[in-house]
Amino acid sequence: MSQAPADSKTENHNPLWSSLVRNLSPYVPGQQTSDPEVIKLNTNESPFGPSPEVAKAISAVLTQEGAALRLYPEPESLKLRGAIATHHGLNEDQVFVGNGSDEVLAHIFAAFFKKDRPLFYPDITYSFYPVYAQLFGINARQIPLNAEFEIDPDAYRAPCDGIILANPNAPTGKLLPLDAIRKILSEHPHATVVIDEAYIDFGGVSAVELLPEFENLVITRTLSKSRALAGLRVGYALAAPSMIEALTRVKNSFNSYPLDRLAQAGAIASFEDEAYFAKRCQQVAGLRDALIVDLERLGFNVLPSAANFVMASHPAGAATLYEQLEQRKILVRHFNKPRLKDFLRITVGTEQNHKSLIEALEQILSELNQQA
Amino acid sequence: MSQAPADSKTENHNPLWSSLVRNLSPYVPGQQTSDPEVIKLNTNESPFGPSPEVAKAISAVLTQEGAALRLYPEPESLKLRGAIATHHGLNEDQVFVGNGSDEVLAHIFAAFFKKDRPLFYPDITYSFYPVYAQLFGINARQIPLNAEFEIDPDAYRAPCDGIILANPNAPTGKLLPLDAIRKILSEHPHATVVIDEAYIDFGGVSAVELLPEFENLVITRTLSKSRALAGLRVGYALAAPSMIEALTRVKNSFNSYPLDRLAQAGAIASFEDEAYFAKRCQQVAGLRDALIVDLERLGFNVLPSAANFVMASHPAGAATLYEQLEQRKILVRHFNKPRLKDFLRITVGTEQNHKSLIEALEQILSELNQQA
Repeated sequence: MSQAPADSKTENHNPLWSSLVRNLSPYVPGQQTSDPEVIKLNTNESPFGPSPEVAKAISAVLTQEGAALRLYPEPESLKLRGAIATHHGLNEDQVFVGNGSDEVLAHIFAAFFKKDRPLFYPDITYSFYPVYAQLFGINARQIPLNAEFEIDPDAYRAPCDGIILANPNAPTGKLLPLDAIRKILSEHPHATVVIDEAYIDFGGVSAVELLPEFENLVITRTLSKSRALAGLRVGYALAAPSMIEALTRVKNSFNSYPLDRLAQAGAIASFEDEAYFAKRCQQVAGLRDALIVDLERLGFNVLPSAANFVMASHPAGAATLYEQLEQRKILVRHFNKPRLKDFLRITVGTEQNHKSLIEALEQILSELNQQA
Repeated sequence: MSQAPADSKTENHNPLWSSLVRNLSPYVPGQQTSDPEVIKLNTNESPFGPSPEVAKAISAVLTQEGAALRLYPEPESLKLRGAIATHHGLNEDQVFVGNGSDEVLAHIFAAFFKKDRPLFYPDITYSFYPVYAQLFGINARQIPLNAEFEIDPDAYRAPCDGIILANPNAPTGKLLPLDAIRKILSEHPHATVVIDEAYIDFGGVSAVELLPEFENLVITRTLSKSRALAGLRVGYALAAPSMIEALTRVKNSFNSYPLDRLAQAGAIASFEDEAYFAKRCQQVAGLRDALIVDLERLGFNVLPSAANFVMASHPAGAATLYEQLEQRKILVRHFNKPRLKDFLRITVGTEQNHKSLIEALEQILSELNQQA
């Protein structure tokens, strides 16, 4: 009954498929589950719910006179773009919204990276970037992170038409200072430089302040992490108006109405409750720092993190710990890739989640010690 | 403040744009308005609200324990695909869902039409098809409707890799009989034939019954028209499992979570209330037939319609009538294209909407007569 696994290049290609489909290796998202007993620390969702104003705003649309759902949403999402612009001190013509930041990124790849010279991104980064490059036939080159898992701006000096960096990087959690971003932007005035700030709200410094200086800068954001709205599918880009225009042209050639009425209303409400947002971001950062201390106490080596997750390795081995945790209904993420296979990526959860995680790890490590 | 008009190929191209962006002529959707005084008969929305079960199901998600919105939606939309499959007597592996049927169509163009031989569609049809063809660099050929604005299957005999037909066709409203579709499918076993059934629920015979016979058949549907959920953005495709797999691969290379939790819950509720759905479809068909009688009485020539809109021409001239109606806050659609410029496309509304429309037209026509 289920669809073929998205990551398998199946043998039985259908001749009706385009060659594009044959050659795709789609993105594989982290495991989702509806089992309420599972402690889910694998896809960087917020441990807290969104602002209560979100549900109120959505309910208001549902009870609106004239049954608003029967009508198409406002296709330009002007009100939402206005709310986002206000949050960032920008104008609404500097804001593009989409059905999750993944859709926004897809349009960015088509609009700015489908050019002659290559696109650069780190060898370790959001694993959707190579998938987009493949989808749009973009010549991409991976630039290795240095031995400390850091982005080295000097490694990006070759001629290119585009650079995309997640900041903080995923899944390392490491932050790139604004100076380094400015250097890259200055050295590549003819390339579009995208800073994917999915995790910036947990303690990083945003590149938004560089927007007035650099027309070649595009920043992407999501409401799925710091705004606890992964279930609502809203993301956005910030850039100069002419760059937003390019994204709008691609969007209107793909799907004129990507954001439904409920998502627009809920997202606006989130931006209108700044106090709740600021409080939750701080809480998550505090929980992260406490989690790092606890993990280090258990012998983990934890990379410094500015995100809502940590990357941690342990002599007991990441694959073993991943499996043992899964058996105890605790989901974390393990990337079976050369430079990452020694690490677990653990999403920041509630205090109670962390207590359960640490207790489970203590148990697992003690059992492994006994076996050894 | 507002974005540049989507249909303008602006002169001031930004050198950071890809050549793709430079060459796009995006789709221009019908005008949307939030003015409650406007009688909106221009974008084929339902005059009635959706089933009351839809709002109940969405409210249930909002009040769910654990603040469900903080978690990503189920990426494969299995429950929704199951509900759709049940409605059509299919299996869930024959169903693909997307963020509106426009997104589903975009993925279809990439998955099946991006091939060597051309894609065929009528010269008069959904005006998004040429936009997709341009977006994906597809070699498309327009096949003229005959003098009666009908699709002639014999005109589609040349070698091709794909054919897409809206049935009923938009904006003509004319229905193609199943025999003709079967003939086209049989004559093109190596081409993917897409039947866009956005308007089929208002009186047409669906091609769903041909699915067991033809692997090259893909059917698209929307919840925006007959299910009165334009504001929720849900559409789907029905096809053989291997064809659904192709769409899934493209989707998972573009956006892993296109349907938010609220849209999934609302759409499922719509499919679970078959009685409401059947009643509303019948009502709309009845209102359409009454509207045709009224328009003919006023001297309109109305094309036979199996949809929730009618195409009508009048000696007074479509452009004049469009403008005069707009001044009276009644929005209909006028396509300024060679074979369509004499017609107005009027969406079926409520009885009260029709009364206002007919009264306005009587007034306008009488004023025009006095001037003449």
